[in-house]
Amino acid sequence: MRFGVIGAGRIGKIHAANIAALEGCEVRAVADVDEAAAKALAEATGAKVASIDAIMAASDIDAVAICAPTDMHADLIEKAARAKKATFCEKPVDLSAERIRECLKVVQAAGAPLMIGFNRRFDRNFAAVQARIADGAIGQVEIVQITSRDPGPPPLSYIARSGGLYRDMMIHDFDMARFLLGEEPVAVSAFGAALVDKAIGEAGDIDTAVVILQTQSGKVAEISNSRRAAYGYDQRIEAHGSKGMLRAENVHESTVQFAGAHGFTGDKVLNFFLERYAGAYRDEIAAFVAAVSSGKAPSPSGEDGLRAQLLADAADQARRTGQVVKL
Amino acid sequence: MRFGVIGAGRIGKIHAANIAALEGCEVRAVADVDEAAAKALAEATGAKVASIDAIMAASDIDAVAICAPTDMHADLIEKAARAKKATFCEKPVDLSAERIRECLKVVQAAGAPLMIGFNRRFDRNFAAVQARIADGAIGQVEIVQITSRDPGPPPLSYIARSGGLYRDMMIHDFDMARFLLGEEPVAVSAFGAALVDKAIGEAGDIDTAVVILQTQSGKVAEISNSRRAAYGYDQRIEAHGSKGMLRAENVHESTVQFAGAHGFTGDKVLNFFLERYAGAYRDEIAAFVAAVSSGKAPSPSGEDGLRAQLLADAADQARRTGQVVKL
Amino acid sequence: MRFGVIGAGRIGKIHAANIAALEGCEVRAVADVDEAAAKALAEATGAKVASIDAIMAASDIDAVAICAPTDMHADLIEKAARAKKATFCEKPVDLSAERIRECLKVVQAAGAPLMIGFNRRFDRNFAAVQARIADGAIGQVEIVQITSRDPGPPPLSYIARSGGLYRDMMIHDFDMARFLLGEEPVAVSAFGAALVDKAIGEAGDIDTAVVILQTQSGKVAEISNSRRAAYGYDQRIEAHGSKGMLRAENVHESTVQFAGAHGFTGDKVLNFFLERYAGAYRDEIAAFVAAVSSGKAPSPSGEDGLRAQLLADAADQARRTGQVVKL
Amino acid sequence: MRFGVIGAGRIGKIHAANIAALEGCEVRAVADVDEAAAKALAEATGAKVASIDAIMAASDIDAVAICAPTDMHADLIEKAARAKKATFCEKPVDLSAERIRECLKVVQAAGAPLMIGFNRRFDRNFAAVQARIADGAIGQVEIVQITSRDPGPPPLSYIARSGGLYRDMMIHDFDMARFLLGEEPVAVSAFGAALVDKAIGEAGDIDTAVVILQTQSGKVAEISNSRRAAYGYDQRIEAHGSKGMLRAENVHESTVQFAGAHGFTGDKVLNFFLERYAGAYRDEIAAFVAAVSSGKAPSPSGEDGLRAQLLADAADQARRTGQVVKL
Repeated sequence: MRFGVIGAGRIGKIHAANIAALEGCEVRAVADVDEAAAKALAEATGAKVASIDAIMAASDIDAVAICAPTDMHADLIEKAARAKKATFCEKPVDLSAERIRECLKVVQAAGAPLMIGFNRRFDRNFAAVQARIADGAIGQVEIVQITSRDPGPPPLSYIARSGGLYRDMMIHDFDMARFLLGEEPVAVSAFGAALVDKAIGEAGDIDTAVVILQTQSGKVAEISNSRRAAYGYDQRIEAHGSKGMLRAENVHESTVQFAGAHGFTGDKVLNFFLERYAGAYRDEIAAFVAAVSSGKAPSPSGEDGLRAQLLADAADQARRTGQVVKL
Repeated sequence: MRFGVIGAGRIGKIHAANIAALEGCEVRAVADVDEAAAKALAEATGAKVASIDAIMAASDIDAVAICAPTDMHADLIEKAARAKKATFCEKPVDLSAERIRECLKVVQAAGAPLMIGFNRRFDRNFAAVQARIADGAIGQVEIVQITSRDPGPPPLSYIARSGGLYRDMMIHDFDMARFLLGEEPVAVSAFGAALVDKAIGEAGDIDTAVVILQTQSGKVAEISNSRRAAYGYDQRIEAHGSKGMLRAENVHESTVQFAGAHGFTGDKVLNFFLERYAGAYRDEIAAFVAAVSSGKAPSPSGEDGLRAQLLADAADQARRTGQVVKL
Repeated sequence: MRFGVIGAGRIGKIHAANIAALEGCEVRAVADVDEAAAKALAEATGAKVASIDAIMAASDIDAVAICAPTDMHADLIEKAARAKKATFCEKPVDLSAERIRECLKVVQAAGAPLMIGFNRRFDRNFAAVQARIADGAIGQVEIVQITSRDPGPPPLSYIARSGGLYRDMMIHDFDMARFLLGEEPVAVSAFGAALVDKAIGEAGDIDTAVVILQTQSGKVAEISNSRRAAYGYDQRIEAHGSKGMLRAENVHESTVQFAGAHGFTGDKVLNFFLERYAGAYRDEIAAFVAAVSSGKAPSPSGEDGLRAQLLADAADQARRTGQVVKL
Repeated sequence: MRFGVIGAGRIGKIHAANIAALEGCEVRAVADVDEAAAKALAEATGAKVASIDAIMAASDIDAVAICAPTDMHADLIEKAARAKKATFCEKPVDLSAERIRECLKVVQAAGAPLMIGFNRRFDRNFAAVQARIADGAIGQVEIVQITSRDPGPPPLSYIARSGGLYRDMMIHDFDMARFLLGEEPVAVSAFGAALVDKAIGEAGDIDTAVVILQTQSGKVAEISNSRRAAYGYDQRIEAHGSKGMLRAENVHESTVQFAGAHGFTGDKVLNFFLERYAGAYRDEIAAFVAAVSSGKAPSPSGEDGLRAQLLADAADQARRTGQVVKL
């Protein structure tokens, strides 16, 4: 599969390197408004620099990986779909659910495959939890608990254009909740506050948030987010069911324990999301390639992207109105 | 300190034995409508059988431990207060907040010490978490997470008169949330369903519940309850703050690990609440005795009992109305 | 079962309290050269003070618990056996294997039950490891690893009369090795040094020791001892077999974890042997009573006491000569 | 740095890929008697196929990585040293200590850098233990414990030419013991047996082994090996010192725990040494390149290779003679 990579920033580099390392795959072209970045990534992966239009028009490019800024995603997905490219796009499709709906109509009309980059579904630990749930290990899932905390808040400039914590950060957890619940939430309650940094609150956002989702049959998911954790990038999930419980604990920097007069100390958890999810990014692209190659619809789909966004919108509304929002 | 113990059932036996084993304490009298039970417990602790009135009237009894059924608690607390006994009463004071308020007025007017049996505050692990929070180990508390699951549901007959999951089971967690947050919740959102046993739902109750509490300053507590856990009595707490995180994990039956072709297996968590909290019950009575002996107000107080009840009422209302309830 | 307790020191108090708490058992008499200690313990357990001879002669005493200094053990065991008392004796029988052999002849001739206090066999964790080995969980045992470290060294005065680390401290581990191997060792290699405190070396003893035992069929046990561990009383065992591995980890002060910029910290391991093995002491006496009551030979036996002593002697010789010692 | 890779088998592929991925490094040539293997690896890394002599003679090759069979190591090291190539050689230098000594004389005379592939020193966990020891975290090291068990035994044909368990398998642990002790062992005691497979015993080797090493100052290392572990590739180390203890636990397949009526189950440990030590192999070559580039002697050195071999020889002799061997 021959890829065009659009966006040569941090996440573009990750995907391009993973594509280049995949058997039977190559990066043909890299596009970025930053010429130097495009050139460097093209050289590193044996590709050429090209414009977005050239990538879309190229008959020797089968797939595109969209790693551009969020506000370009929907337009690029539509272009790629019309050009009949298999499309992998970083989350989110757009910050507006309305725009996502329009975009998915274009994709559907074009009949081109689309996968959204909810990378955590491909984490070795989280994927194993979901697979064992699907195998019936814990019977019926009843309560899902997701704890997700960043090591530290992003710059305020990023916060301002992020769409807010629910759409920018908890979006991953909404997707994970759906992945583990196996049912659509129909009610959302959301609380949040700016406890980490008052400036985040002054910018109209929150940095600490807890949300409950409930499905029609009564299953519940609780999601807990913070923009700051002193001990690293805290990423845990737990699913409680009729026959037992599955949980994926954090990944620590090492297995070393130091015991002394103070007690027993182990390392922090992996701090950087690119290290924490390095394997997930690899397996994600491999899953995209495997699905497209075998003619299956890649998953998570555009619809999954929309559903997560609707939950984020509902959470935002729930918190602002102080009411439970029904979907 | 010379105690009268009212109620010779399961929890009465625990408290009586712990009182008898405490340096400087003794059980003087035991009362129970079940004469045989009263006699057996009196013999085991070197006490005599007496009526409730006799206990209240006895000049050689300094304190009473109320271990009778819930619907007798408020009346007994009032009697004991009027008799100027130091009173330890099992939770809850009453299932009606109005009745609790009246009762606490009587206690206050009498000026007698009263402690409510929220035993989990005295668990070695949970107490350590609270003590380290108080010491500033994690800075400002921002998110509290409480996971509390019974090994299996009680009989339906018990459910019917229990006051419902929030007042019967989650009441402990409401108290724990207040204990760890260090601030009063002002908003409550609650979800629940009967997923463990439909008959519980038909009886008007739930067996699976998730609640969020938020304080005025924005701190959040999430509480997760189930009436059934395949792996034992699941009792965990976690507090996330500006400088770090504290958590108390479950207590397992042993430290043994068995590794084989299937992986690594450890024991279930302690299954029976009387075993899990054996030390907490001992330390609870010791704390009551220590407080009363030194003239300090015992804690948790009657007011703590009321506060937890108000949260349970709010959660019940929140779930029934599908709305966030403000306090 | 009516006990006479000989020795009212630290360990005598433990055993007496456990006997008194056992259904159907009582402490009838306490003997100690320290009159005050005897009197205090007698009062605490509802017993009377008596001389050793009176205890031996008393027709209303069925069993004796020997908690006197080591150099009195063998004489007292012989007296008790001749008096047809069921005898529980703290380890070791004697520091001389020759003396132990004589003593066991007397016991055998008298036909009285004798149990030696290797308390660790009754630890909930270690007992579970042995039980699962016996159930075949790990197939054939091949390698046993025992790590045993005291929180700190005893006074030099104690070291001087202790018989040396192998006979005083590692004696427990020799018994545990036999318990887990299920076969008698036939070869012993031993290394040791005074690394904790030079004065221990100057007193002719060691404080750091590693020993290997091998059985006829080739199974191996490795034992690691230190007189000092900064993080508490380190007590771990592991058994590796054809089908898997069993291990019992340390018991920590709590299950609390504190996570911060430094990493994740848990509590030290229980520091004091009387706390670490509180349950083992209870179960040990209960096992003695159960065996004697049902007419079975209590275990561990006097022979077990002798075998452990012979291994200690062999280890001592192996270290001093720098040679492997065959048994 | 431009490398010639000699040997295109399993380990040759690992090193070649790691060299190719290192900034500023490339594989120039690959040699192997198996032409097809050489060609495939050359293509995968952008190198050409060449003979060993051509590699040695090439002026555009700075370094060689020797990944050929053990019996070729010493000859190849000598050739490379005479050709003034920086040399990385897989362990062991040779199965004969005498041959190693000769070889190291040639290397010394040539003045060319040589590093031996004791990969475990570069494992993230083990390296951290050693670094913290070096930083004084646990004070003086007193006892080192190394547990090393393969998932399953190699083919008998491999056993026959392996040099025996001590030289083939425990050689890594001898190096690790020296790495952690920071002192040379002067006495060796060794036990072993063929408990996993009798055929291994009939072939004159053992599959289960425990060894003690002691240094002049009295520090002790215990090493425990088995050729089979039902639960995966068991790789653990522990160091006990005057101020505390450091240990590196196993690396598991995931962090997932499944709790049910049976207890709590986690995954096996990583089963395949190439996965378990993938990072160690990367860091090992990077350390070689960094040392050579900066003109420092790479470590572990040829002398380290010799020392480990002498300990293996001593252990073999100790076990065969049933005596402690002094070095």
